Amino acid sequence: MTDTKSSSASATVVTVGTLLFDGFELLDVFGPLEMFGLLEDRVRLVMLAEDPGLVRSHQGPVALADSALGEVRRLDVLLVPGGMGTRREVLNREFLAGLAAAAQASAYVSSVCTGSALLARAGLLDGKRATSNKRAFGWVKSQGPKVDWVAEARWVEDGKFFTSSGVAAGMDMALGLIERLFDRAMSEEIANRAEYEWHSDRHHDPFAKLNGLI
Amino acid sequence: MTDTKSSSASATVVTVGTLLFDGFELLDVFGPLEMFGLLEDRVRLVMLAEDPGLVRSHQGPVALADSALGEVRRLDVLLVPGGMGTRREVLNREFLAGLAAAAQASAYVSSVCTGSALLARAGLLDGKRATSNKRAFGWVKSQGPKVDWVAEARWVEDGKFFTSSGVAAGMDMALGLIERLFDRAMSEEIANRAEYEWHSDRHHDPFAKLNGLI
Repeated sequence: MTDTKSSSASATVVTVGTLLFDGFELLDVFGPLEMFGLLEDRVRLVMLAEDPGLVRSHQGPVALADSALGEVRRLDVLLVPGGMGTRREVLNREFLAGLAAAAQASAYVSSVCTGSALLARAGLLDGKRATSNKRAFGWVKSQGPKVDWVAEARWVEDGKFFTSSGVAAGMDMALGLIERLFDRAMSEEIANRAEYEWHSDRHHDPFAKLNGLI
Repeated sequence: MTDTKSSSASATVVTVGTLLFDGFELLDVFGPLEMFGLLEDRVRLVMLAEDPGLVRSHQGPVALADSALGEVRRLDVLLVPGGMGTRREVLNREFLAGLAAAAQASAYVSSVCTGSALLARAGLLDGKRATSNKRAFGWVKSQGPKVDWVAEARWVEDGKFFTSSGVAAGMDMALGLIERLFDRAMSEEIANRAEYEWHSDRHHDPFAKLNGLI
């Protein structure tokens, strides 16, 4: 966190780096980035990929990664989305090594949906509590046998790791992270500006039951 | 709508064209596109701009427009986001003419947030009911004095026009449009897959009151 003027939250500028890869899930990325983006002059958004350039989402639309994962220095927040591309990246050793290095250099590490499978395969979640998408939960668990997977949670916080459930849950987690970085009033103000009814109780998860996990 | 095999919804493929411009709001675009994208092989997503190429969002991240607005033929859904860039585009006559032509060639025309100001300035909403972002409502109204602006609504349907409130409301509207294009079960299935608690009542709008509009 770059504290430009004083120790007050209003003077803080946070850098959020988002890791893109072919086949990322659109809302996993742009839901949280909408919430972080509403911090306006208090945030800097950086788009990362193993190789900078155009990256195609699972749904088709293409986004630009302006920075290489390997060149990342310290981030306040590293955001790792899920999506069908995770099925390929869990087997990509260089990608996972870059992810591990970036995570170690970040104050907070967050994932949405099956992004937690990438964190698990990078060895970052061993012995920690984490969650993931409720329709792919079995596969994600198999990627991290030493992780304490939590089936019923909108998102899980364990130290610097914030892992969320599927897709839309990333927006709720992002607001939880903004509360941690700033304060509750900031998260509520941003949710209101986005006309988003924030599910601020991270234990509230109707989709665990819906998918037979509890 | 390209009905490839029969008249059943399961065989329908819809084409959704999204209009990008510098300064578009991230979630206005990618919230609805997540929902449409979950139609998978029943949808084709096209990214449009006045000039194809890279387009920077208000928040900073850049997306690729692969098609020119002027080359659009028939779309099932035209999606028009809001964002600070609308303040420039309401004065761009060529852009508005292209938007009007694309809207006339589309089965449904949808907007999120201040995107309805663009539809209004293109002359598409005169005499119709529509809504918009609740924090920019006064400005949007000034862009369309002949529009019947509805202050309290998550989204408004008037014939082929679906206009939503601010930012996150676009996801609810997109699911409403999917219900119209397919059926209620499809919208509910997609909301569940996205782990999104759909606000399916388009009259439910806590943000109108919060912002002193009612």
